[in-house]
Amino acid sequence: MVEDKENTASAGQEPVSKKAAKKQAKLAKKAEHKADTAAALAANEAAGDSAADHAAARYGLSEMIQSKDKRSEREFVTVSDLNAHVGKGLVWVRGRVHTTRAKGKQCFLILRQQSSTVQCILAVGDIISKQMVKFAGNIPKESIIDIQAKAVAVPTKIESCTEQLLELSVEQIFVISQAKAQLPLQIEDASRPENADDAEGLNIRVNQDTRLDNRVLDLRTPANQAIFRLEAGVCRLFRDILTEKGFTEIHTPKIISAASEGGANVFTVSYFKDSAYLAQSPQLYKQMAIAADFDKVYTVGAVFRAEDSNTHRHLTEFVGLDLEMAFKYHYHEVLHTIGNTFTAIFKGLRDKYSREIEAVGQQYKVEPFKFLEPPLILQFAEGVAMLREAGIETGDEEDLSTPNEKLLGRLVKAKYDTDFYILDKFPLAIRPFYTMPDPNNPMYSNSYDMFMRGEEILSGAQRIHDPEYLIERAKHHGIDITKIAAYIESFRYGCPPHAGGGIGMERVVMLYLGLDNIRKTSMFPRDPKRLTP
Amino acid sequence: MVEDKENTASAGQEPVSKKAAKKQAKLAKKAEHKADTAAALAANEAAGDSAADHAAARYGLSEMIQSKDKRSEREFVTVSDLNAHVGKGLVWVRGRVHTTRAKGKQCFLILRQQSSTVQCILAVGDIISKQMVKFAGNIPKESIIDIQAKAVAVPTKIESCTEQLLELSVEQIFVISQAKAQLPLQIEDASRPENADDAEGLNIRVNQDTRLDNRVLDLRTPANQAIFRLEAGVCRLFRDILTEKGFTEIHTPKIISAASEGGANVFTVSYFKDSAYLAQSPQLYKQMAIAADFDKVYTVGAVFRAEDSNTHRHLTEFVGLDLEMAFKYHYHEVLHTIGNTFTAIFKGLRDKYSREIEAVGQQYKVEPFKFLEPPLILQFAEGVAMLREAGIETGDEEDLSTPNEKLLGRLVKAKYDTDFYILDKFPLAIRPFYTMPDPNNPMYSNSYDMFMRGEEILSGAQRIHDPEYLIERAKHHGIDITKIAAYIESFRYGCPPHAGGGIGMERVVMLYLGLDNIRKTSMFPRDPKRLTP
Repeated sequence: MVEDKENTASAGQEPVSKKAAKKQAKLAKKAEHKADTAAALAANEAAGDSAADHAAARYGLSEMIQSKDKRSEREFVTVSDLNAHVGKGLVWVRGRVHTTRAKGKQCFLILRQQSSTVQCILAVGDIISKQMVKFAGNIPKESIIDIQAKAVAVPTKIESCTEQLLELSVEQIFVISQAKAQLPLQIEDASRPENADDAEGLNIRVNQDTRLDNRVLDLRTPANQAIFRLEAGVCRLFRDILTEKGFTEIHTPKIISAASEGGANVFTVSYFKDSAYLAQSPQLYKQMAIAADFDKVYTVGAVFRAEDSNTHRHLTEFVGLDLEMAFKYHYHEVLHTIGNTFTAIFKGLRDKYSREIEAVGQQYKVEPFKFLEPPLILQFAEGVAMLREAGIETGDEEDLSTPNEKLLGRLVKAKYDTDFYILDKFPLAIRPFYTMPDPNNPMYSNSYDMFMRGEEILSGAQRIHDPEYLIERAKHHGIDITKIAAYIESFRYGCPPHAGGGIGMERVVMLYLGLDNIRKTSMFPRDPKRLTP
Repeated sequence: MVEDKENTASAGQEPVSKKAAKKQAKLAKKAEHKADTAAALAANEAAGDSAADHAAARYGLSEMIQSKDKRSEREFVTVSDLNAHVGKGLVWVRGRVHTTRAKGKQCFLILRQQSSTVQCILAVGDIISKQMVKFAGNIPKESIIDIQAKAVAVPTKIESCTEQLLELSVEQIFVISQAKAQLPLQIEDASRPENADDAEGLNIRVNQDTRLDNRVLDLRTPANQAIFRLEAGVCRLFRDILTEKGFTEIHTPKIISAASEGGANVFTVSYFKDSAYLAQSPQLYKQMAIAADFDKVYTVGAVFRAEDSNTHRHLTEFVGLDLEMAFKYHYHEVLHTIGNTFTAIFKGLRDKYSREIEAVGQQYKVEPFKFLEPPLILQFAEGVAMLREAGIETGDEEDLSTPNEKLLGRLVKAKYDTDFYILDKFPLAIRPFYTMPDPNNPMYSNSYDMFMRGEEILSGAQRIHDPEYLIERAKHHGIDITKIAAYIESFRYGCPPHAGGGIGMERVVMLYLGLDNIRKTSMFPRDPKRLTP
């Protein structure tokens, strides 16, 4: 699916000759004709006989929209704007058939447009024929249709639709794109609330793999529509807040020449006659941008981890929200900047995405995300003390296991009433070689993690900016200095002290909403077992 | 350089024992001591004898900034804000030594901070000793220093600095991060105007490879500082303008299971026990997002092309600004949206990035970018006619060669006075199989390219949204239907007509500024011969 025409030319496709083009035109004509015929057939079939159909021109299968004309006279109204048209003239609406049911002389059809739904009615009379009612009742679910209708106020609320105070009295109906009659999953099933009352176990659930295998359908549920709009909001807020703070966006290469830390968990790429790797993080490049005087930088982009981890929170490819910042004297200048960025993101989501949060809440149990301002900062040692107080045995220099991490999250929530906190001063022993040791206590380091609902979503640190000290620390870790020579070299031309961190975007969205699986917040997730769609 | 601690643990690094930690602390102490000693030594050496140095406490090599204390009493002033401090008290400034020269009892030092420069002066007297002057004169270029100084108005403009009306009278000077004495390139050389008067050929030029090999230094030139800030602006404008128009940002996978168009020009990745590919474009995923009701989407991300093209405008990895949009009846709804987005980007750059454009212009010959509002749209056939009028032989269904593309750009500029235009209705024969044919003329298609200064920067089209017609067209192109089954399948559940396009970010920046090589607008470029840094 390459767009660049230079590539297209070299993709080995034969150019179409004029003769072939003519044949093509014929085929297109034929397809058009077929559509018209199908419409006629559908109408006749609906009639069940050859009785004259006074509504014949008002419904059918539309020919494929090939940009033949602009039909600029048709002004379309969105479903959520329909209330402004109640009691007024005819409007055109395009949407999907969510459900449709013809019964006798009436057809009730629910039209869906993204997360909005509206009831449509066709009743036999002067305008509508019984053939037309039958046609409408037979349109496969998920087909895209154009209707011309009047918006009419209803006396009792329509509970099954988002537009509860009106319905559409349809006068014309055309199928724009017809869906298969058999769908691999029903939007209704895929949208069902997780905690719905289902004592008899009759409700069909759609499992994760079926959803992901048919992502185009699955993404149409109101919850998914909301999740990915909120995800776009997280990125937007991240960028806007940092831009406001004077950060510059950069782009870092994904294909790199050397696996930075010994080659563990890294994907290999064939690069012409050579081998290369996919970057596990943009860190080296962010640091180079700092050494190159960009002062404060961020980057949003794909990050790759060849870990064979099949958990609820690991992906092999995810979106990294990374930032790096020069500071004057203390890495807390950076730590506070990152902490405040999170606070601003949480506020932005709460204030600007309340509709999306509510939509997700209709299907999944979403507990409101709590945060403090300014954010809570605990020392690693304090965290250890809290765990010990709760009866957990854990060493001073031991990393937090996933269960301990989660428990600590619960303890912090109970004590401080916040779903977000920062753990500062991790033990030096469990951090990478380039982490700046704590000058005041050799057991610790100038590094931090940040947590949402008890799960780590950012890891960061002050980096060693002195090349000699970096060599010393790398040797101490048993790292082959020759393999990181280029990295060390970038600090030899003067480099300000700096710190930063990397955030997993999908994790932030998952944990903000309190969802149980990261595959719910990656549009097309990649894990060791999934490479499609 | 992995940040996730879970990875760190698995990267095979031994945890540091307490004993080792103590040793570590000792080493750090030693390094500190070394620094102090070095400062003392430097001072003594400067003195040339053991004479008492009354300024000894006011200069030296600072110990490595390890976040020991916050020194919050030191308020730093940026160079560009210094004019507000003229005639007032002492201020602290951190920056790089751009040049320094001690001569007798005085030292002239130019301090650089990103693109700003200011002259600093140290003169022997009550505050400054001759040792201190010598010390300042010996600081290697590009070192980062902290100075405490008074801003003083100067009677005659300092032409060599961006701050021309003031200089800094230094009272304290400390080296924060010392650069190597020998630099692989001089910022001065790398910043020299391309068209500088150099009759004797004495000026050193820095070639592209030397620049890229030492990118951390090269990026410090005022032109590069400006180029990458403007590039961030292009992305920001692209996103903001589309968000304003109701688009949603999405993220698409870079690792894909099948090479979409026969496997030409695609990088292969080892994926656990399997093989995978790097995406050449997000098109399939954008289209799936449209089929999934996101209506209007864009994505900014890495795109990979395994083409062995070593030209001024090809990269193997670049940043794609991609968008896709459902429309009602005519793909021109999308074409106009894209065209207007470009107009808004050009206006945004002109209005908000004039300083950056000017900075680039100091080094490279930048002709102002001209555009029309609304943008000029020509038919492909009109373009062919213009070329023929200029004496070029070219077929009706022949693609534009690069020289013809450039010539057409010049002809359009001469006739319409615009550096941006849209060429609509490309011949069907030279476009990919999924391009919608023109319903009114079988020789053409509903596809378009957009050009800046005569080079293609966007290619796009209405895509075929009807699965049967798509199969027909694929077969016509001799494509194995089984290999694109998943792609076709995504249109079987109802899909609105849609169109879109893909933009090469680096090309937009290169052509907007009129630069001659795409490596100038990629921070860390990748081409068939370059994988580093």
